[in-house]
Parts: sequence; structure tokens; C-alpha cells
Amino acid sequence: MAAPGQNVAVVVHRAGELRLENRPIPEPGPDEVLLRMHSVGICGSDVHYWQHGRIGDFVVKDPMVLGHEASGTVIKVGSGVTHLKPGDRVAIEPGVPREMDEFCKSGRYNLSPTIFFCATPPDDGNLCRYYKHSASYCYKLPDNVTFEEGALIEPLSVGIHACKRAGVSLGSKVFVSGSGPIGLVNVIVAKMMDLSASRLQKAKEVGADFTIQVKNETPQEVASKVESVLGCMPEITVECTGVQACIQAGIYATRSGGILVLVGLGPEMVTVPIVNAAVREVDIRGIFRYCNTWPVAIALLASKRINVKPLVTHRFPLEKALEAFETTKRGEGVKVMLKCDPTDQSP
Amino acid sequence: MAAPGQNVAVVVHRAGELRLENRPIPEPGPDEVLLRMHSVGICGSDVHYWQHGRIGDFVVKDPMVLGHEASGTVIKVGSGVTHLKPGDRVAIEPGVPREMDEFCKSGRYNLSPTIFFCATPPDDGNLCRYYKHSASYCYKLPDNVTFEEGALIEPLSVGIHACKRAGVSLGSKVFVSGSGPIGLVNVIVAKMMDLSASRLQKAKEVGADFTIQVKNETPQEVASKVESVLGCMPEITVECTGVQACIQAGIYATRSGGILVLVGLGPEMVTVPIVNAAVREVDIRGIFRYCNTWPVAIALLASKRINVKPLVTHRFPLEKALEAFETTKRGEGVKVMLKCDPTDQSP
Amino acid sequence: MAAPGQNVAVVVHRAGELRLENRPIPEPGPDEVLLRMHSVGICGSDVHYWQHGRIGDFVVKDPMVLGHEASGTVIKVGSGVTHLKPGDRVAIEPGVPREMDEFCKSGRYNLSPTIFFCATPPDDGNLCRYYKHSASYCYKLPDNVTFEEGALIEPLSVGIHACKRAGVSLGSKVFVSGSGPIGLVNVIVAKMMDLSASRLQKAKEVGADFTIQVKNETPQEVASKVESVLGCMPEITVECTGVQACIQAGIYATRSGGILVLVGLGPEMVTVPIVNAAVREVDIRGIFRYCNTWPVAIALLASKRINVKPLVTHRFPLEKALEAFETTKRGEGVKVMLKCDPTDQSP
Amino acid sequence: MAAPGQNVAVVVHRAGELRLENRPIPEPGPDEVLLRMHSVGICGSDVHYWQHGRIGDFVVKDPMVLGHEASGTVIKVGSGVTHLKPGDRVAIEPGVPREMDEFCKSGRYNLSPTIFFCATPPDDGNLCRYYKHSASYCYKLPDNVTFEEGALIEPLSVGIHACKRAGVSLGSKVFVSGSGPIGLVNVIVAKMMDLSASRLQKAKEVGADFTIQVKNETPQEVASKVESVLGCMPEITVECTGVQACIQAGIYATRSGGILVLVGLGPEMVTVPIVNAAVREVDIRGIFRYCNTWPVAIALLASKRINVKPLVTHRFPLEKALEAFETTKRGEGVKVMLKCDPTDQSP
Repeated sequence: MAAPGQNVAVVVHRAGELRLENRPIPEPGPDEVLLRMHSVGICGSDVHYWQHGRIGDFVVKDPMVLGHEASGTVIKVGSGVTHLKPGDRVAIEPGVPREMDEFCKSGRYNLSPTIFFCATPPDDGNLCRYYKHSASYCYKLPDNVTFEEGALIEPLSVGIHACKRAGVSLGSKVFVSGSGPIGLVNVIVAKMMDLSASRLQKAKEVGADFTIQVKNETPQEVASKVESVLGCMPEITVECTGVQACIQAGIYATRSGGILVLVGLGPEMVTVPIVNAAVREVDIRGIFRYCNTWPVAIALLASKRINVKPLVTHRFPLEKALEAFETTKRGEGVKVMLKCDPTDQSP
Repeated sequence: MAAPGQNVAVVVHRAGELRLENRPIPEPGPDEVLLRMHSVGICGSDVHYWQHGRIGDFVVKDPMVLGHEASGTVIKVGSGVTHLKPGDRVAIEPGVPREMDEFCKSGRYNLSPTIFFCATPPDDGNLCRYYKHSASYCYKLPDNVTFEEGALIEPLSVGIHACKRAGVSLGSKVFVSGSGPIGLVNVIVAKMMDLSASRLQKAKEVGADFTIQVKNETPQEVASKVESVLGCMPEITVECTGVQACIQAGIYATRSGGILVLVGLGPEMVTVPIVNAAVREVDIRGIFRYCNTWPVAIALLASKRINVKPLVTHRFPLEKALEAFETTKRGEGVKVMLKCDPTDQSP
Repeated sequence: MAAPGQNVAVVVHRAGELRLENRPIPEPGPDEVLLRMHSVGICGSDVHYWQHGRIGDFVVKDPMVLGHEASGTVIKVGSGVTHLKPGDRVAIEPGVPREMDEFCKSGRYNLSPTIFFCATPPDDGNLCRYYKHSASYCYKLPDNVTFEEGALIEPLSVGIHACKRAGVSLGSKVFVSGSGPIGLVNVIVAKMMDLSASRLQKAKEVGADFTIQVKNETPQEVASKVESVLGCMPEITVECTGVQACIQAGIYATRSGGILVLVGLGPEMVTVPIVNAAVREVDIRGIFRYCNTWPVAIALLASKRINVKPLVTHRFPLEKALEAFETTKRGEGVKVMLKCDPTDQSP
Repeated sequence: MAAPGQNVAVVVHRAGELRLENRPIPEPGPDEVLLRMHSVGICGSDVHYWQHGRIGDFVVKDPMVLGHEASGTVIKVGSGVTHLKPGDRVAIEPGVPREMDEFCKSGRYNLSPTIFFCATPPDDGNLCRYYKHSASYCYKLPDNVTFEEGALIEPLSVGIHACKRAGVSLGSKVFVSGSGPIGLVNVIVAKMMDLSASRLQKAKEVGADFTIQVKNETPQEVASKVESVLGCMPEITVECTGVQACIQAGIYATRSGGILVLVGLGPEMVTVPIVNAAVREVDIRGIFRYCNTWPVAIALLASKRINVKPLVTHRFPLEKALEAFETTKRGEGVKVMLKCDPTDQSP
């Protein structure tokens, strides 16, 4: 076990090879802060890099620290940092644009092709003891928001971004398809209903008004089922599975003039009922990560409008990271949290 | 040949059977006006009903008058009509909602499932001498807008609605795929560039800055070609062909964060690079006809910002409607116009 | 007292003259329904017509039935009505457009200058036993929504429309200025904070996170107080008082790039710090009644996301309408409800 | 006269004191470029700093180089610059955000309180021979766009930003109030109509469809005049004078549901008919400078959709800057252009 003061990090070297290593404690630049990490959630993509060494065109060529759902405490600030000071508890937005290109300038920095992103090769993540980050992308947590809630802002942000892209507003009727962690955060944000079989109980628990279970129905039959349970066709469908049949069901299920948001990603090429979508003006919108979501999430958490705590089902100290990854790989629970601070393992 | 005073109408009875018939002159209801028709364009859908007796679920079961791109002169007004009077020259919006449902109330009346629509079975169109219509959907033409321009507002509206759905605004870079009549009106509205082979000269004529010709390129190669000709990826692609390869090219060609509008309709199921669209947040939006476009079109025509006159390539008197339909069927020219008023065959 | 079966109505004749009269039971037209009224709230405008005989240019010239916050039961339907049947419990939207003008077509029918509106001269309201209304503007209530909740949709709609115009969305920080009934419904919808002195307890009760009390502060001081209580400047201010100093405070208080919605109306001419608003791009938006809010409100009420029941503080049977109006005039309580059905006085 | 190689600059020292000085040639940082300036327009604010030494809270305390409507040629690039190279002709966006705050992240960087802005104290402008600037805010000019057109993008941007904030789109009917340079660029962008007396001929020249002249009319009378000339109430009014009566006229003139954009700034406190605006849902929106306008402007200029060349009425070599400022102060012509490159004084 690493002694306090050393910078223990969870590093993937290549497909199948995950190591606990010691890394130097970094020095923050003028616009950066140094953080003592507290809580870091394990994401499906972390497991995927460990298992496969790549996701699409992003290939692990050099050893890379994993982790991007994270919170910690500021212990040192760069010379140009004014809004943070040592002792501040912060949540970390993992994507930091490197240049002020057209996407950044227009408020969609998540689409910037040169963006730095924690634990997307070749950029190191923050599953470690000490980590430096752009101060502008560290957000101070109010006293009534825990570190784990802070770490969960990252998956929650996917739901917030999806719901913002979907235009979810007062009284929107939303159909969330899929009940993995991302489906669940979408339910939390949209507070509505939920499709497929597993973890439906969890969906109810986090706020779904109705849930339905799907087995061998055709996409059109799923759409009918949604309409009959909800009492009308939903204006918005948030598709979190990436499965072709579910995307098709999402189109059929959505009310004319409504919106289908694609959150889950599956095969590159998918066959969809395009005429049905087009002539009913059902818009199809994908999302890529998120932008401008941390302040929203903190407002929602601080005001207790939403509750993400039920999502955390397992906790491991950083030293037991390999065990934590095995647990996540087996698909147990919803969210596995790693506790990086040996002196404070509280939520 | 029908004598003036009789109501000659172009009627489809079943697939392949088109007749010139005499119909009674209708009496306008309280909120309607009676019109002496002047100019009516022939649309691809008119030809399709004649050739196939159906489009999708819309089947010609009883004889139906064709025609929905139309303009004429008010000759009688219902008791409740205040904004029109006999002698007014008007353009006719062919879709008239029958009930104030959620779509009408929210300004998207084109999506109302019970809407009346000229020459969509079982609703009669206006390819005839005398026709009554809801006064609210007849728009007075300024003196400097001709009847034919008034009739062309219908196809132009498809372009306006597409460009509004696409969010075309100041300086938008738009790629219009397809150069049939609808591709051309989109070029006119968006004033930009144009894809496929035929009628590229026409596209240039109506305002395309660049045109490209496509033969055997892959969708990705088409996308590259567009980027190289335009100097950057277009923010908006308006796809007017409905061909699967063109829809795919439309996704690859559109800049991250941009919009692909589907105007052309082809096969019901289409295979698309959905991950490419989703992770670059390229939105896919279809259109169904149009709404709220006549006032916009009249403003554009009256101010001479756009010129649709080059679209009319053939004219026939109403009595020669069968000949006009044969001409349209052969794909000659761009827009064939029928002149319904035997005493005034001017544009 | 009027016997059941007769159509007792609350009628204003001129300033200061309010009578309980018997009116004929109306016959519904083809697109109308006849309703047995159940619950009707008294609005400040009802009291104003009674006290002053006019509001602005709207003058009571002929006797007019008051009431426009209403719900009841369908007892007869016109020949063209398909979505309602006798026995349906409905909430009534009081504004019914008379013509399909540009405002209706574009989804902003509240702005239609010829709209019918209950209890705005010369249009009769529905504070009576039997009332006919356009079926399209009667909305079926789910079993778990009470008649009084149905009647409260009208004031709630002001809050919904204001919040929609303000773009209130996930995590928005909203400052609601004023704590009359309309301030309160805005708090309910926006779930945030609230200004002025009276009824602050009620604001807390319906969901305000913070409340502040204002006495002699300057508008700039109020703005500072809001920022200090909220921890940041609100992105949105909903101004419900109409008082000049509050409008000024609303501008100063709102974050750059934010929105001030004017709900309360006071003097026609108001002096505002226009440069402060302009150079910080704080938009100023008014509202006129509402549109497209009933389905949203029903969704919010049916899912129990919001609770309007605490707003009702007094109930009177229809026969005691004059007493109810006196109570409202004295400013007691929040919302006074009249019970129009002698056989069912339940909420 | 300064020899080539020296960095002649136009410097304001205090109210009334303008000097031509020699400054060191700056060295670009890693993300900056060094520019040889070509054309710089004189703005009313430059004259104001010279005459009054301040605008509002911005006070000239130390000598400051004037100029922010500028274009030039890249002669040196910082180590991190990839999209520009020596020899590139560029237009300069004068505002460069200093931190990635909430405004920057959401695409409204013009509202960032810590932004650098050329010739706003204490930040130096670019009315000089050699100037360094953030590379991200230098935009390459196509071959068919002149340096002067590049310099005019700055005032043009005010029009683009105003029209974007106003939602000007296809067929919008726009009333531009005021015919100074900013009124004119708004006419160019919105291509519509124009109010007040002076320079109406110029407004016609740059594309106004109608112009009206106002003398002693009340605001309501001006509104009527606009409606009668335009044939309907404009959906959008762009107010460029800042005069109270014109702002009032702008409210009365705008169609219900429309938008009044405040571009001109006058006295801090202004009395407006707020109830008229509110109950007709006429939104009031200010603008502060602009954001994301350079790419739009370049697209408009390169495609020849707009023509700003008529705006330049005077040209002076940099050495005659004081004479140029005197000319601008006297209000002669529309735009005075300073030519900074002694070897190339072409447009």
C-alpha cells in the first residue's frame, strides 16, 4: 500500500493490464490548481480501456491514468487563480478546451477537436492521490454537497446535457430508454419513465413515474406500450442503450414534433425508419459528453431538487482499485466509488 | 373544351386515369372565399397520384381534383370574412387545419393529423376554374407579385420551412443536396451550393455559389468534396433527394454541431452513420410540408430579395392539362404551370 | 337563493354593482360543450371590474358574468366534439381565439386581438351554474386532480407562461419579486425565492428556498441583498408587483445575459435603467396571459411535481358570492374559491 | 513623419490631448501573432476618449493607443499558433476574453467582465504600425475581401449581433431607427428601412427599402408612420439613436410578439411605455458589442451578399491621424479610414 504523500495512481498500460503505480506529485501552472483527490467513480469507459485498450479511434499507446468522475480538495493554487483557494472542496469537469476555436467561442466547447479530456488517450485521468487541473474547470462545492455527489456530477452531466439538448422543460413527458447508470441519471434529471428490463426497481427509486419491461416486442409494439402506459405519446425520448431496435422504438414512440436524443452508442451504422421520423418532424439529436453542466448540477444538488446518492452502491479505498474494477466489470450494482484520501473515506 | 362559366377541373379517378370534368361552382361558407383560379403549378405528387393512385397510405378511392400550388382572384366572400374582398389577388395555402388541437395551438399546424390538404385524398385540390377555400389561408398578393409567383409560394414554402427548421441565418454555410424543383427552391432560399448532376446550370442560375457533380464517390468522398469546394464544412445540409447514400453524405459533410434537414423522402428504412452524427452533435431534422411560410414568402417576393420566375419553364391552358401532365411526367423543364383563367393567361 | 336547475350567475352591471342573477342555460354549438360548473376562483381582475367598472380600455358597458378561473363537468357535447363526453371533468382555458390570424397560426394565440376571453368586457365569464365553452379549450382532468386544482390552472398558467418566456430550466436561479397569488404561482413553478414583505411565510410554504423582506432599500440595495442571499446574481427575475422601484431592482438584480420577466403591471410609463439593462444584455420580456399552458399544468399536477392546494384559503357556495367578493376585496387569504355545484362542494 | 520600421501610434493622453508617438514593436507571446497594420477605422468612441478622456466608468488614466476597427498582415507567429502564418491577411476582433468564466463557456464572451478590449482603458488599441494580438481573435481574410472591408467587420459586427439578438430571419420586417454608421450597418445586415433625418440617402444606398423622416411627431405618430410606410407593423425594431423618444417610438411601432433591440445608448435612466410593451409581449433586448460575428461577416463579404464599401467616405495616412480625427469630430462623411502601411495605402 502506498504511503500518504506518495501519488498512487491507477494506470492502464495496455488491454488487460491495469496497475497501481506511484507517480510524481505534479506542480500546478499559473491557471491551475493542485488537488488532493477524494472520490472518483468508475465509468464504463474506464473498464473498456482496461479490457480492450481502446475505444474507437482512441487507443492506449502509453500508460494512462484512468478516472474522470472526480472530486477533491484544493491544496495549492497557481499564480493567476483568483476564484479558488487551498481548502476549497471542488468537483472536476474532466474536459478542458486547449484552444479558443469556433466551438469554444460559441459555447459548445465539448465539440472542440483538440480538447483535453481526463482518461481519454493520451490524456491522464484523476484516479490518483494528487492531481492538477485547470482552475476554471474546478467548481467549488457548497457545504451541503458531498464529495461523492461532486464526483457524480460527471455522469449526471450526461443526463443534464441530454435533457438540455432535448429541451426538457416544465411538464415535459419524457421516455427514458435504458436503465444503466446513464439511463438512471436521465431519469433523475427528467424524472419520468424508463424502459428495459434490468434495474427497473432502481429507476422507480430514483424517480421514474412508470417503468415498462421489454422482451420480444417489435419496435412498433414498444412504442404502443409506452403510449398506453404514459397515456399519451412522449414529447421526448432519451435513448440510452444504443441498440438498433431501441433507436427504432424511440422514433416510433415519440410524438409528432418531438425529439429523440441519442445518448447510448452502439454500432456505427444503424437502420432507422427515417421517413416516419421526417414526416412527423421528430428530430434526432445526439450528444457528445456535455458542456456548461457543472453549475446546473451544483444548483440542483445544493437545493436538494435531485438525489443522486442512491446511485452509489459500492465503495473501495484507492488501494483496492483492482478489486473495484473487477466488481464494475461484473456489472454489479450501479456506481462503484473509489476513495482516494486515506485520511477521509467519508461519502 | 369547357366554356367559361363552367367549372372545368382536372380529376384523377384511379391510377392512370386523369380526366377533364365539369364540376359545380361551390358556394363559400361564412369563413370562406370563392376564387377564380389563375395559375396552378403541377407538383410531382400530382403526377404520382395520377400514375399510381396513391402515395403511401393516402389512396385515391373517389375521384379527386388535383392541384395545390395555386393562386387566383377572390370573387365572393363569406359573411364572416373581413380581410379579403372581391377582386383581391391571393395565393392559396393548401393545408387548412380542421381542429384546434395541440399542434395548431403551438404553431405547428402542419402536424395536425386531421388537417385538410388540397389534392391529398380524399380532399379535392384547386386545379379547376372556381374553388372555395378558408379565407384565413388565402393571402393577398401585393401588386408587384404575379399570380405565378403566388402559385410558386407553395414549393417555395418547402424551402422556407426547411431553412427555418435548419436555422439558416446570416452567413450560414449551406449545402443543398439535389437539384430538382425542391432542391432549387432551397438554393433560392438558402442561396448556397448544390450537389448532384442534373440541372446544375439551373442551380447556378437561381443563386448557388458553387455546384458539384457526383458520380460514383462514396458518401465520405462526397463530404470531402463539399468541404474542399466550400473551404469549410457546411453548418447546414439540406438533403432533397431521399437517396440513402446522399443522406449518409449529408451526415459526414455537416460540421460538428450543425444540422441536416431531410427534405427528400425515399425508402422508409435507411441505414445511417448514427454514431458519427451523434458524437458530433449533428442534428437530423425532417420536415412535413410547412407552416407559417406564406407571409414570409410574400415579403421575400415583394422586396425582390428572391427570384422564383426562372423556375417556370412551361405553360399550358387548363384545357390542355393532360398534355401538361404528360410533359411533367417526362421530366422536362422544372415547373409546368397551368393557366386556369381563359381570359387572362398572363404570368 | 337560486334553485338547482336554474343558472345562477354573478353579474357586474357597472362600477360598484354586483348581482346574483338567473340566466338561461345556454345551448352548445357544434364545437362546444355545456358544463356544470364546479369551482371558480376569484381573481383580482374580477374585483377590479366590480369596483371600477373597467380595466384600461376594457369597460363594462353591458351586464357581464364574472369568473375565469374555472372547472366543471361536461353535461352535453356539440355534434362535432370527439375528445370529450358527458361526465368528463374539465379545466377551462378562458381565452378562445376567434380567428386563425398570424398570432394563432404561429402558436401565440394569446396575442390575437380578437380573442374571446371570459369576463373581459364584453365577453361573459363562467361564475355561474351552467356555461358553454369551446370544446378545444376544455381539458380533461385526470382522476387524481381535483376540481379546485383544475380551477387553479388559470393563475398557475400565468406562472408557467412567465417561466417559459423566461426560459426557466434545470437549475435556473430565479428571483420572484412579489408574493401575491401570481408571485406565489411563479414561486411554485420556478421553485425559488421571493421578495416583498407580506405573505413571505406562504412563499416559503409553497417552495421558495429563500425569502427577503424589503422596506426602504434603494433598487440597487435590493439587488445586492438578493445576490447576497442567493450567493450569486439570479439568471432570471420574475417581477410580479408592477411597482417602478421593483422593476428597477429587477434589472439591477439580474445577472448579465439574463432575463427579467414583467408579470405585474403598474403605471403605463415607467422609468428604468435602460443602459444598465442593455449593456449587460439583460432582456426585458412582458407576458400577456398565457398560451399552451393547460396540458403542462395538468402534467405537473397529475405527477404531483407541484402542489397548488395551499393557495386556497377560503371557500364559499355560489349563493354567497357577494360575501366572497367582499372577502377578496379586503385582501384576506390568498385565493377565494366559489363552489358552483350545490350538490358537490368538495375541493 | 515616422520612418517605416518604427511603430507610430495614435495615443490619447487625457481629454483633448491626442499625440502621434513612437512605441516599441511588441513581441508576440506563444498564442499571439504580430501584425503589420493596414487599415483602421475611426469610431465615435475613439473621438469620445480624445474629447472627454472617458466613457462612463472607463477613464483614460495612462496614455492609451486608440483604434479597434482594424485589419493587417501577419508578420510573425507565436510558437503555439497553427492556423495562421506570416503573410496572412487578417481582420482583428478587438475583444479577447482573459478568463474562461461562465460567460465564455456559454458562448457569450462579450459579457465577460475581465475581457481585454482594444482602446477601452486601460487596454491599448491598434491604431499603429505594429501590433500583437491573440491569434484566436485574428481571422484570415479571403482574397476577394479587402483590408478595409476587414476593418469594417467591427462596426458591421454590431449590426450582425443586433440582428442575431433580434432573431432577424427570412422575410423579417425590420425597422432600423437612426442612420449613423451603426444604423447603416444594421440596414445593411437587416436590409430594411430607416428612420431619422440625416443621411437617409445613404440608408437608401446601402439597401433600405423605405426611409422616413421624423421631425416633431410624437412617438405614437412615428409608429403610425412606420406602419403606414411598411404596410404593416415591423416584427423587429433596431433602435440606434439612444434617444428616449425613439425608444418609445420603437416600442409602439413593433408588432405584438416582436422584438425591440437597443443598440444606441443615451441617458442611463429612460422612461418607457412598459405596459404597452409587456401586454403585447414586445421584448426589449440590448446588445453589448458582439460575439461570434467575424466568421459570419467574412462569409457575407466573401459571397458578396452585402456591400460595406460605400461606408468609407474618407481616407488618411496614419501620419495624418490628427487631421482624420478632426474630420470625424466634425461629423463629415460616414467612416474615416486610417491607412497604417506607408507602402500600401490601397483599400
